[in-house]
Amino acid sequence: MPPTTSIATAPSIEFWFDFGSPYSYLSCHRIEAAAATAGVRVVWRPFLLGPVFQALGWQGSPFTQQAEKLRYMWQDMARQSRKYALPWRQPSVFPRRALLPLRVALLGAGQPWCGSFCRRIMDYNFVEDREIDNDAAVADALRAADLDPAPILAAARGEANKERLRAQTESARQRGIFGAPMFFVGTDMYWGNDRLDDALAAAAAARP
Amino acid sequence: MPPTTSIATAPSIEFWFDFGSPYSYLSCHRIEAAAATAGVRVVWRPFLLGPVFQALGWQGSPFTQQAEKLRYMWQDMARQSRKYALPWRQPSVFPRRALLPLRVALLGAGQPWCGSFCRRIMDYNFVEDREIDNDAAVADALRAADLDPAPILAAARGEANKERLRAQTESARQRGIFGAPMFFVGTDMYWGNDRLDDALAAAAAARP
Repeated sequence: MPPTTSIATAPSIEFWFDFGSPYSYLSCHRIEAAAATAGVRVVWRPFLLGPVFQALGWQGSPFTQQAEKLRYMWQDMARQSRKYALPWRQPSVFPRRALLPLRVALLGAGQPWCGSFCRRIMDYNFVEDREIDNDAAVADALRAADLDPAPILAAARGEANKERLRAQTESARQRGIFGAPMFFVGTDMYWGNDRLDDALAAAAAARP
Repeated sequence: MPPTTSIATAPSIEFWFDFGSPYSYLSCHRIEAAAATAGVRVVWRPFLLGPVFQALGWQGSPFTQQAEKLRYMWQDMARQSRKYALPWRQPSVFPRRALLPLRVALLGAGQPWCGSFCRRIMDYNFVEDREIDNDAAVADALRAADLDPAPILAAARGEANKERLRAQTESARQRGIFGAPMFFVGTDMYWGNDRLDDALAAAAAARP
């Protein structure tokens, strides 16, 4: 039996992601169950990957800059989704803009509905091939989590929340993030869905 | 008990690598044991990664072009080496030139000593922080595999073998390779040490 750990004292993992990132789709679906098994708390850290790429002097995602890598990534994502028993459809638009849902995810970080909302938005992008940066998609995802969309959309669009997302994105840059998903266990950085299990093991081992 | 399979009819995996590639170091150490467990034959495919990057229009390795990614990679390699119980020292020169040892590895592909030779060269680069593109290092690695270096070095430098390595590198480019290690199971491409297990599982499942 795993040790009983209260939420406050459980070791934690930070999950930095953007809804436009394919490998974040995999982690978004996997992380809550895997973290629960490991006795680790998930700290959701939505951020804007585009400005981070720009700050690094990149023209955009390495996938869109390098055709061979992009072609491979689609093949790999189809295989990886099968491996994790997740549905998958290659989106017709890549990378999709996700400003509004990221603002909502930021509001939801720390709320019990965050994971459910994020997985739904990810599925719109990577299973239903649906645009996600609009009121209708975000409202649908909120309603699916049994929430009233109107007040959340209003708060998401408030200046304070907009500024928080800008600050979180700047924090991503300052911490050396260059892609997504990125996991942090303390100051140790782990890149990519392939490192989720290692990061969780490190977090569990760091239990005080 | 696994089915008895002769070498000729065993399913196979192609292992494309360059001795300058850190993640190829991990795969080089892991692949023979993992493939034997899976009942899969390893086809060693040494090639020159530099000309492939050039042909793609890249200035060099993504690691040397992107400082954040390079810094992360060194941290990740240290952790991954611990995970696989392999020794590791961050090389003081990166990426190391490896023309001569790649020519010898090409001669050795299909020979029983290939794996032993390749692991030794990888260790010079990534454990001993030693230059590898010279006669002394290659001769040491051949002697460690109980071979007489002189005739092998002479054959490696022969025009026919030089041309074979150029052709193998061109073949890498034509098959869409953009990094190392790269694995092929039939025409399916798997990128990175993180995909070795998936590739072996696919090869084993494709058993006729």
